[in-house]
Amino acid sequence: MTDRLELRIDGEDGRETTVGAARDTTILDAAHAAGYEITATCGARGRCRSCRVKVLEGTVPPPTVQDNVQLGPEAVRERFRLACQTKLLEDTRVRPMPPKAESGYQILGGQAATTAMALDSGVEKRLITVEPPKSEHHQTSDLDEVFNALGESLTSRRVAPELVRDLPARLRQYKGTLTATLFRGQLVDIEAGNTSEQAYGMAFDIGTTSIVGSLLDLATGEELAAVGMINPQAPFGADLMSRIAFAQFNTKNLQTLRGKALNALNDLIKEACGKAEVEASQIYKIVVVGNTCMHHILLGIDVSYLGLAPYAPVLRDAQTIPAAELPLKAAPRAHICTLPILAGFVGADALACVLSTRLYDSEEIRVLVDIGTNGEMVIGSRERLVACSAPAGPAFEGAQIRHGMRGALGAIERIAIDEDVTCGVIGGEAAIGICGSGLIEACARMSEAGVMNASGALTRKTEDLPPAIGKRLVKSDHGAEFVLVWGAESGKGEDVTLTQGDIRQLQLAKSAIYSGVAMLQKEMEVGADDIAELLLCGGFGNYVDVASAVQIRLLPEMPAERITYFGNAAQMGAQMVLLSEREWQRAGELLESIEHVALAARPDFQELFIDGMNFGAPKRRDETEERTAVAV
Amino acid sequence: MTDRLELRIDGEDGRETTVGAARDTTILDAAHAAGYEITATCGARGRCRSCRVKVLEGTVPPPTVQDNVQLGPEAVRERFRLACQTKLLEDTRVRPMPPKAESGYQILGGQAATTAMALDSGVEKRLITVEPPKSEHHQTSDLDEVFNALGESLTSRRVAPELVRDLPARLRQYKGTLTATLFRGQLVDIEAGNTSEQAYGMAFDIGTTSIVGSLLDLATGEELAAVGMINPQAPFGADLMSRIAFAQFNTKNLQTLRGKALNALNDLIKEACGKAEVEASQIYKIVVVGNTCMHHILLGIDVSYLGLAPYAPVLRDAQTIPAAELPLKAAPRAHICTLPILAGFVGADALACVLSTRLYDSEEIRVLVDIGTNGEMVIGSRERLVACSAPAGPAFEGAQIRHGMRGALGAIERIAIDEDVTCGVIGGEAAIGICGSGLIEACARMSEAGVMNASGALTRKTEDLPPAIGKRLVKSDHGAEFVLVWGAESGKGEDVTLTQGDIRQLQLAKSAIYSGVAMLQKEMEVGADDIAELLLCGGFGNYVDVASAVQIRLLPEMPAERITYFGNAAQMGAQMVLLSEREWQRAGELLESIEHVALAARPDFQELFIDGMNFGAPKRRDETEERTAVAV
Repeated sequence: MTDRLELRIDGEDGRETTVGAARDTTILDAAHAAGYEITATCGARGRCRSCRVKVLEGTVPPPTVQDNVQLGPEAVRERFRLACQTKLLEDTRVRPMPPKAESGYQILGGQAATTAMALDSGVEKRLITVEPPKSEHHQTSDLDEVFNALGESLTSRRVAPELVRDLPARLRQYKGTLTATLFRGQLVDIEAGNTSEQAYGMAFDIGTTSIVGSLLDLATGEELAAVGMINPQAPFGADLMSRIAFAQFNTKNLQTLRGKALNALNDLIKEACGKAEVEASQIYKIVVVGNTCMHHILLGIDVSYLGLAPYAPVLRDAQTIPAAELPLKAAPRAHICTLPILAGFVGADALACVLSTRLYDSEEIRVLVDIGTNGEMVIGSRERLVACSAPAGPAFEGAQIRHGMRGALGAIERIAIDEDVTCGVIGGEAAIGICGSGLIEACARMSEAGVMNASGALTRKTEDLPPAIGKRLVKSDHGAEFVLVWGAESGKGEDVTLTQGDIRQLQLAKSAIYSGVAMLQKEMEVGADDIAELLLCGGFGNYVDVASAVQIRLLPEMPAERITYFGNAAQMGAQMVLLSEREWQRAGELLESIEHVALAARPDFQELFIDGMNFGAPKRRDETEERTAVAV
Repeated sequence: MTDRLELRIDGEDGRETTVGAARDTTILDAAHAAGYEITATCGARGRCRSCRVKVLEGTVPPPTVQDNVQLGPEAVRERFRLACQTKLLEDTRVRPMPPKAESGYQILGGQAATTAMALDSGVEKRLITVEPPKSEHHQTSDLDEVFNALGESLTSRRVAPELVRDLPARLRQYKGTLTATLFRGQLVDIEAGNTSEQAYGMAFDIGTTSIVGSLLDLATGEELAAVGMINPQAPFGADLMSRIAFAQFNTKNLQTLRGKALNALNDLIKEACGKAEVEASQIYKIVVVGNTCMHHILLGIDVSYLGLAPYAPVLRDAQTIPAAELPLKAAPRAHICTLPILAGFVGADALACVLSTRLYDSEEIRVLVDIGTNGEMVIGSRERLVACSAPAGPAFEGAQIRHGMRGALGAIERIAIDEDVTCGVIGGEAAIGICGSGLIEACARMSEAGVMNASGALTRKTEDLPPAIGKRLVKSDHGAEFVLVWGAESGKGEDVTLTQGDIRQLQLAKSAIYSGVAMLQKEMEVGADDIAELLLCGGFGNYVDVASAVQIRLLPEMPAERITYFGNAAQMGAQMVLLSEREWQRAGELLESIEHVALAARPDFQELFIDGMNFGAPKRRDETEERTAVAV
């Protein structure tokens, strides 16, 4: 995979324009840089549909919440995207298809216009003009006058005292011009003057490894800032189980983790507000998703029993909590919405993935797979949904791998094995280690090249290999190793290798995912051929080479074109709930309908897991290569 | 009025027993002390009806909330009382009427059995046994198991995170025996073990002068402790207007007053819990009534405009506020319920009085009058209710009166004028001043004796008076004065007098009340004869001599037997709301239906007020004396 990609644009006049662009450039920017004009009426903010394109070739990049808001899920599934929001991940051919009029749009986009996600965040800002009470006889209160001006949009007359403490002064400022903010029909803010345009929200996905957040304009759905950081709890345990162990039966440690999470969210809110130049006091709704452990820690809930069979969560329902109770620094009466939890290891993040991928609405069987230290998988369609989790461990993040590292500068991410080994290193620098996606690719290539056999054992028959390859099979204090980069060429002055132990770690990790999906297939009684699409969710999916993942049997044996990278589906689910109360309601419905299979408690799982340890049989090699060519 | 009273008991066998008792002794205690047996099955706790008596002669003492709970408002109106709760205020004749059976009871008490106030505080404690989640597949959460055990009494699955933080440990203690507390169908507490008998609430009436509170058992209605203190805000202003002036446009001063109120309530909660030996953490509901200013200050709401026409409150609706937000120290998820406010000077206390006197349900026209620095009055029946307020000022509390004092030891409270003046002093000590009720009586007697004329001027014609009386009319640096107690006999070494200025102060105060009631009568188009009953509410009413109050035209000219002392009606209203959600709901309905008349804004008020300044015409003297004989 190269960082320089090709974008071909099918013009309306039938002419094709080809432009080059860096990976992660938006289609709109790439086109504009090359002088090709695509109209972006809203100023490339994802607030209109004028820059709509249809992706004709190349994997369709993951949709954004703005694609859903502007185009609707049907159009999104039909490969329509907003050029201003869509980042190039590989060579792509698109056709600009601005909706000329609603009628024309209907023909192009099918039902899209009617099924676009409605913006109904539950937060409503109303500009009102209120006069102070005048009559001494039939007395009203300042608040009554506010309520009268609000009319029927108010469904509750309950109000927090703090909202009205300064109301008399505010009411008499600016000639009674006030902006009242309602959340779910209840008054949550009264500001002097007109601030009706300023209604913001944050969507957070708290992962074990990293936390991402986005600041959205609740009225338009526009993303005003995207922020993220490494989860500052990491020093207290790299993966879920170590995090749980740290806090288990130890309230003080739990509080430590909680404090880290709260500070992180508050820092990210501050950072996002700084970037977007908005006031945190005008953030009225915050949606948080995350796995069960992260969810519980954030709310200060004892996680002790999350680490003990049957790994039951303490709380499953979606909750709406005053931000001040956590506390998060937003509007004083902002609310935090947490999504429901399916099971101890199938958390609110998994549910958010189901929401954003709309698996619940699929006519065909689809699978979503979120690869992480704890993998989460859901299979199904509108008929039935089944979820499970698999403890993949941190191998995919480069942990517990001798030369493992995160996907940062100096990490091997691509490998070719021919007469010798050639490595692609992030940033083009000298290799200092190998990241998760590199590990997958290395094993795929080593398996194909016969450097190791189907069971993952490094071969002893070096004589069957090209000489340069054979030399790379060495023995050291760490046992058998395969040298990817010799010390002389490496960035750390020693050989960068994969040890037999590393391969075993990867096998455990990839079998966790593979056998998890296999169990779900078994539960649903469907083969790989029955799966219309596998949606790869989560940050890791962005970097993994799909063909390699299929080759090493991390993902089920299915054609690469049926495997789609969906981006951070959990975060997108959070954004959808932030913008739409209907999605929030749906989350509650999904909690009731999604079934859960506990792999470890299934006697038939052991067999699937052992089978999943194997790499693809060598005979599959040619087939797989063909698929690879199609996919990348 | 003497402190030694006579209680006559009409026995079931037709024999009458007469016992002596101190004022404020309960009928039950008085009877038992004299060896007369009245059964008190519940141990004199107001929790059963076995000690029921009917008051045959004497003013019926004010009912308690327990009378309402056990006997119902109809029986209360028919002069039934619980002997264990009813304190003797004057000579009284009663007949014990224990309900023998429900049928017998029906005959005696009419509809009482069916109309007794239902105990539905909204707080429900449920003893449940919960097993930790067992299934790994169809996972439930700890909280789900609690919810399942609670069944349909739960109307909301929302829960504050803090309630479930330690749930895992609690659930696994005592073999899963838990006590769940619901408030209005929502979970507010989960305790390990069985605490289902411990559900308490507090009812507070925050007056400008004093704060009273009672701790009630929510399951039985029993009063476990009664507490009270002088309002610690008093040093910052004796009456409402000075309190408002102190806090007006000065947030810091408002916070000072608020802090005083919060500390007072927290101290009273602590004191009540100490007395009753219960845990404050098991107080789940707190009802607070008070005038608008006290209400706003407690909630930290700007009172600046309460002091400026049209004196509009900032907030009128009843509110339910988490105790932690104030904060009050009760159960972590306790709720504070404030009653609605009718107008800036007709506060939640007035509404509570309407609730407890059941004015809204009266077939005949009744008037309730709460005498205080700010008098509040409501007239009406089930057809229509009209309220007003009148700034009486602090004269009735002895303030702004030269020798004025509170009703404490050494205060003149009773006066007779014959050939000379005889004073009754609280505690039988040497007089050091005069209290509000003494002031009223002094003016009544002075008016009758011709010491002053109908317009309140001290007479100059001393020759028409008995010599000893004439000598008492003196002139000093303070102008004309009437000496009540000569310095030689007084407890402070100087004459205790009433000055012409004092009389003017009293006139302003009593006319405020009198003309307020007159305005309400005018608004309702009813004369004094049309008023079936005048209910005297508030602490002051306990001490005032009704006949004297009528004589000086503080109260309207009506026979004393139609004037009833109802006790602290505001506090009783708070207790009723504490025990009954129906009453809480009714309070909201009353807010909509009670009309408000602003006296100062009525052009016809001035005339009424000037007329109200006059004392009774001398010709009425004999009539009034007759009435007095009936009343006391």
